[in-house]
Amino acid sequence: MDKNSLIECHRRIAPFIHLTPVLTSTLINDMVGTTIFFKCENFQKMGAFKMRGAVNAIMQLTEQQRIKGVVTHSSGNFAQALSLAAQSLGVNAYIVMPFNAPQVKKDAVRGYNGIISECEPNLAARESMAHQIVEEKGATFIHPSNDNDVILGQGTACKELLEIYPDLDCVFSPVGGGGLIAGTALAAKYFGNDCKVIGGEPFEVDDAYRSLQSGVIETNATANTIADGLKTQLGDKNFPIIRQNVERIIRVTEQEIIQAMQILWERLKIVCEPSSAVALAALIKEKEHFSGQKIGVIISGGNVDLAKLPFR
Amino acid sequence: MDKNSLIECHRRIAPFIHLTPVLTSTLINDMVGTTIFFKCENFQKMGAFKMRGAVNAIMQLTEQQRIKGVVTHSSGNFAQALSLAAQSLGVNAYIVMPFNAPQVKKDAVRGYNGIISECEPNLAARESMAHQIVEEKGATFIHPSNDNDVILGQGTACKELLEIYPDLDCVFSPVGGGGLIAGTALAAKYFGNDCKVIGGEPFEVDDAYRSLQSGVIETNATANTIADGLKTQLGDKNFPIIRQNVERIIRVTEQEIIQAMQILWERLKIVCEPSSAVALAALIKEKEHFSGQKIGVIISGGNVDLAKLPFR
Repeated sequence: MDKNSLIECHRRIAPFIHLTPVLTSTLINDMVGTTIFFKCENFQKMGAFKMRGAVNAIMQLTEQQRIKGVVTHSSGNFAQALSLAAQSLGVNAYIVMPFNAPQVKKDAVRGYNGIISECEPNLAARESMAHQIVEEKGATFIHPSNDNDVILGQGTACKELLEIYPDLDCVFSPVGGGGLIAGTALAAKYFGNDCKVIGGEPFEVDDAYRSLQSGVIETNATANTIADGLKTQLGDKNFPIIRQNVERIIRVTEQEIIQAMQILWERLKIVCEPSSAVALAALIKEKEHFSGQKIGVIISGGNVDLAKLPFR
Repeated sequence: MDKNSLIECHRRIAPFIHLTPVLTSTLINDMVGTTIFFKCENFQKMGAFKMRGAVNAIMQLTEQQRIKGVVTHSSGNFAQALSLAAQSLGVNAYIVMPFNAPQVKKDAVRGYNGIISECEPNLAARESMAHQIVEEKGATFIHPSNDNDVILGQGTACKELLEIYPDLDCVFSPVGGGGLIAGTALAAKYFGNDCKVIGGEPFEVDDAYRSLQSGVIETNATANTIADGLKTQLGDKNFPIIRQNVERIIRVTEQEIIQAMQILWERLKIVCEPSSAVALAALIKEKEHFSGQKIGVIISGGNVDLAKLPFR
């Protein structure tokens, strides 16, 4: 995945995504002691950066493949992203979801014409049902994060940020399944000027932190975090990119995530997910190391249940 | 207040304010049946459009006046706006607030170096204390909404919107003290192309609606609304402008305000005040009349207590 493949990807998906705004806040800058540029993917179509990768993955399929549709298993943003991307491109999207997924998430997928197949709430059942749809429909399976076309698509957010602010010292991204931070690392490498990429990860799901330490993909024993978008795990496509191009990963507590989320809502006036706040929480945690620098922070998404907010 | 005075005002205040972004949402457009451009003053400095008028009013003072400072009575956004505007321009701001105003609002004013004088929580006490400060310090009193320089400043938000989208059919603005909608009406008159201005107002504080009916400034008997920024009353400077240039005012219920606020948070992904949602609520209420039109909606501000949200 060279520089040109990222340029071509961006050109390809541009008509189907928003060029999202970059916001700044003097108050947050003063608080952290750095100049921060927030790339607001909560304003992306369907409310998260995942739209970028989903569009790119579908556009890379052949006409024959597109006719047969795409399939994924996800109860989160990628289910919505693949559904909307497929709808935009006139393709069927089959979404495997656990039967006990929240009604609001099922409704969102159906709102984008996604075709839901319900299964038992465990990974084996999800994979089995996705496999069955691949067999029966001839649909192409698209992984939410461990897919080169998805990784490239997610990288276009950081590319857009660096095209406006080419001299950022570093960019912070949350780390979940690894698609966003891998794409961000590629964009920083190709479009930055010695721009470092740093990940933010909850202590509760620190598989990426531990994987970088050990050199092999580690798993999470527990996943008790408010950052529900980050419970997924690295894969063999994105881990080598992360290992080679990400400077380091800073881990944060649940309390630090909630505090950063409150700062983003109160000061930046945006609705964003707890997962988005993890990147800012990581920066705040080690702010002395970044004093006076120009920092990009990727706000990953804004799909959150307003009736279940952590503020008091 | 002619076209040129608005142009000069905008040029004057531009270095001290944000050119706020305009957001759109396909989902909201589909829901309402119009194309809506949201002018997001929740992203303005200190979190509301009030910064514009405050900066302009202070900049119109003589050097002698500036040395002696400015004074207002407000427990809301104008207290913060005048404090920050004064701080930006190196002027003292004396803010009269009721002693029982929320601590968070007092802290915000002090954060911008505003000098607070506490008084009894009634209008007579506020006015008396403000008068006393004018006498003692020689400070200039600046009214939050019934002041020509304030009205001009508030109009620059709509001017910015029309400079990008000159062919809007109408612009919706909330109506409180009348400064925002009067300025918006002037901007629409000078920079729009037959662009109508329509106000949104809670039934609970419908003084502006009734004033337009009767032709004289009416008062509110009650003020039991979630839109706390709209409890104030029209004045003799802004009412004639509103009477001449505002097409009409649409009144909305508390439930309609909360529903519109939820749409803005969930779909547009922005943190905004209930007062901001009143304009969208008014449009939704009579959406059949605006079908297929291009509509501007002024999102007035985003200063809200996250621990006291109306969503369930």
